[in-house]
Amino acid sequence: MRKGSIQWEKAIGDLLREQRATLAVAESCTGGLVSDRITDVSGSSDYFEGAIISYSLKAKARHLGLSLTYLERYGALSGSVAKKMAEGVRKAFGTTYGLSTTGVAGPTGGTKRVAVGTVFVGFSDGKKSLTLREQFRGGRRAVKEQASERALRWLYETLSRSLSKPGTDRT
Amino acid sequence: MRKGSIQWEKAIGDLLREQRATLAVAESCTGGLVSDRITDVSGSSDYFEGAIISYSLKAKARHLGLSLTYLERYGALSGSVAKKMAEGVRKAFGTTYGLSTTGVAGPTGGTKRVAVGTVFVGFSDGKKSLTLREQFRGGRRAVKEQASERALRWLYETLSRSLSKPGTDRT
Repeated sequence: MRKGSIQWEKAIGDLLREQRATLAVAESCTGGLVSDRITDVSGSSDYFEGAIISYSLKAKARHLGLSLTYLERYGALSGSVAKKMAEGVRKAFGTTYGLSTTGVAGPTGGTKRVAVGTVFVGFSDGKKSLTLREQFRGGRRAVKEQASERALRWLYETLSRSLSKPGTDRT
Repeated sequence: MRKGSIQWEKAIGDLLREQRATLAVAESCTGGLVSDRITDVSGSSDYFEGAIISYSLKAKARHLGLSLTYLERYGALSGSVAKKMAEGVRKAFGTTYGLSTTGVAGPTGGTKRVAVGTVFVGFSDGKKSLTLREQFRGGRRAVKEQASERALRWLYETLSRSLSKPGTDRT
């Protein structure tokens, strides 16, 4: 996945630096890979504040401000949870943007409603929250890599759009 | 680094499962790679609660309970900070063990006292805290990979020792 693809983490860094903006990440199914890629860029400490890897419902509730009752009832596999994770991590680190991932890396953990390989990505800039649902194929590592690549590419596209859109603070 | 080496993350998982113990991680210089490797193991959600990637002093203070005044005065590059990070993340996630990394992945950020490639690893089990200092060579990615490998191997060795030592709770 990594070779030959555009390095979104580098492009994201350039955009954030240009905006003097900061980023925090909440990762569930990607388990740290999104943050690992972001921190492969030299100088990323200028805009990357950090991340919460929340691998249990309790951790999502405790560190990202989600309701444990809600998570226990509906689970962590939804666009709504991805949005709340992005909002929660943005607040927890006091950053301009929050990015999140939640889903089923597999090989177990799939449900009737959410199959193995399903990944929800969330974004928050404090005013709006967005979400994306994707279905990936392959083993656990393959799902993690595709999900991280997709999350980073989507973040880049989202940040680019918000920069070029007329009527935003920057115009 | 990864190919051919023993998969410490797998061996750690077996030990933690055997002990019915849980783990949380605080990563600075490794930027998520330690957590990424731990979560490559299928079923790791049974014992891995999550991680805090603290890429700024503020994030270390806010999420790991370190003193911002101390960090601003002495920096984050010491065995003492690594220990406090391990203790802090263990408390933050309510786990049996805490593991941490802090150091200089490079290529910039080195100081007179702490050269590029220096990494401190911390461990806490709530009773004792341990630390390890290592010096690695190579570029940013190479330092991250060597530091993650060393941290995982050291955690495995530390957990194995505590299991086999007479006089512990398990004997």
